Amino acid sequence: MSNDNRTAIGIDLGGTSIKAALLSEKEGLLDEAIVPTGAEKGSDVVLEQLAGLVKGFLDTHSDVVGVGVGFPGAVNWERTIASHPVNISGWGNVNVGNAINERLGTDLKVVIENDANAAALGSARFGAGRDFDSFIMITLGTGVGGAIIYQNRIFRGSTGAAGEIGHVTIDYDGPMARSSVPGAIEAYLGQRFLSRHARYQLMNRPESMIHQMAENDLHGITPKMLHDAALAGDEGSIEILAWAGHKLGCALGSTVNILDIRKFVIGGGLSAAGDFILSSARSALHDFVTPALRPGLEVVQETLGNEVGMLGAGRLVFQHIDQYGSETD
Amino acid sequence: MSNDNRTAIGIDLGGTSIKAALLSEKEGLLDEAIVPTGAEKGSDVVLEQLAGLVKGFLDTHSDVVGVGVGFPGAVNWERTIASHPVNISGWGNVNVGNAINERLGTDLKVVIENDANAAALGSARFGAGRDFDSFIMITLGTGVGGAIIYQNRIFRGSTGAAGEIGHVTIDYDGPMARSSVPGAIEAYLGQRFLSRHARYQLMNRPESMIHQMAENDLHGITPKMLHDAALAGDEGSIEILAWAGHKLGCALGSTVNILDIRKFVIGGGLSAAGDFILSSARSALHDFVTPALRPGLEVVQETLGNEVGMLGAGRLVFQHIDQYGSETD
Repeated sequence: MSNDNRTAIGIDLGGTSIKAALLSEKEGLLDEAIVPTGAEKGSDVVLEQLAGLVKGFLDTHSDVVGVGVGFPGAVNWERTIASHPVNISGWGNVNVGNAINERLGTDLKVVIENDANAAALGSARFGAGRDFDSFIMITLGTGVGGAIIYQNRIFRGSTGAAGEIGHVTIDYDGPMARSSVPGAIEAYLGQRFLSRHARYQLMNRPESMIHQMAENDLHGITPKMLHDAALAGDEGSIEILAWAGHKLGCALGSTVNILDIRKFVIGGGLSAAGDFILSSARSALHDFVTPALRPGLEVVQETLGNEVGMLGAGRLVFQHIDQYGSETD
Repeated sequence: MSNDNRTAIGIDLGGTSIKAALLSEKEGLLDEAIVPTGAEKGSDVVLEQLAGLVKGFLDTHSDVVGVGVGFPGAVNWERTIASHPVNISGWGNVNVGNAINERLGTDLKVVIENDANAAALGSARFGAGRDFDSFIMITLGTGVGGAIIYQNRIFRGSTGAAGEIGHVTIDYDGPMARSSVPGAIEAYLGQRFLSRHARYQLMNRPESMIHQMAENDLHGITPKMLHDAALAGDEGSIEILAWAGHKLGCALGSTVNILDIRKFVIGGGLSAAGDFILSSARSALHDFVTPALRPGLEVVQETLGNEVGMLGAGRLVFQHIDQYGSETD
């Protein structure tokens, strides 16, 4: 369906910076750029920054077929309106294509997608998801994000919001995270919750090197500290990361039982802890999948890092045009 | 894609009986038939029964485009080989199309699908699922079955086994059903488990009318007894059914968070208890779905009964031919 070698701009709109890639369909990444988001200065400033990045690429490339944007919030089914961003003040319901085209006097095709979905599409083409036609991507960051790639495309559900695996319960009587869902895995693996669990576990283990790393204030424990301490052999930290992996694996098991998709790519800051988390996740995953669906289970770490977001946003443009055509609305 | 008014044979291969429908694409059910399965006599007898039903319709209708079979076990991706049936002795890996065509000297297109998936496709066209493009069907019987209809088609996952919602955990430290998954909802709502829970709850409640209904042997409690007693105002039975509904709702919540499909059709024997189960299921569902995905949640009871199985199997033939063509392999 794709003609010749198309070029698109892929943008990852983050809370602190906006990353942009000039992406060739055949040759991959041609160029990249980054600017501060200016989230605290409000939506107009953010949209100016966004438009400025697009203009920078357009000035040197006349053959761009469209712009894809990975957005940290909700996106409508048509992929035109972005709303409820996690961190940008004063952002209502924004038609991002109009906002860019009005500022630049252009008529570009602009496609918005939830950032977790865009990252998964990037992983599917350029990252650890390359080997799989279908997989679940889990992002372990401040919260626990998720996205579903099914037969090389984003599985969107009925409104575009599928893949909220961070809110899957593993204990109907369990603790609550921001979602208010009891026992949601975000209440175990979200950064704040994991740090609190670590604090409670380690306060009575004076031998843990975490005390020194956190300068004796356990409120300052970070996932990176736990990983560093685990690498140095700290038993308490190793146990905490394994505990977190077990909770993750329980939820992944439910996901397999529902979707019959057996491959997982784990990204985000906490995923850097690698097998300290993933070994116990794999073990729990096996136990929480019904036996008939256990063959072929696989959990791998995303190696490409945050780059997958902007690359996936660019790729989205090609897929969207192939499916729906290139007219702007 | 469909030409004229096609006719197919839809078959629901159950543990005790085989039900068959002659289905017109435009006019619906034209004729039906039923024979005993003969499961205990082994796979050859079952296949004879199956072929006999097909022959009965072929003798009077020359324009049948194919045969669909809802099978109580695993089916391969190509929908040709049926294996691991729950109840039929001596059944290995059977190419059901070959088995029928060899017996009848025909060259019919035969499409096999898991019975829960076939029933959901029937509900989508003829049953309570008619109103929804996408929905989850849950069958509360001996076990807890599930199927996913996405944009009017069966969502099959990567091997054809998606929708095993009975094995979704709601408590990683919970009881085990036959799947060996801790806290799987089948360990709460499967017939054997629900009856055991009722026995434990009611043994200390001598005022419950269940004691009389079960002739003072609480091992004989059935879901129907609980429903009948609940209808008569028995408080213990009402509480038990509400308890079961709550457990169901927790798992449905996880399903929504993953799929962003917000409609549920509940069938199977226990679903006859209606709002005694579904009211608490709806309430738990709300609590276990992340707030952004709560609008539009709906849980309805399948009203058509077991008929959806054979009707869905027939409909599958039309969809399969439209997607893959009508050649037999």
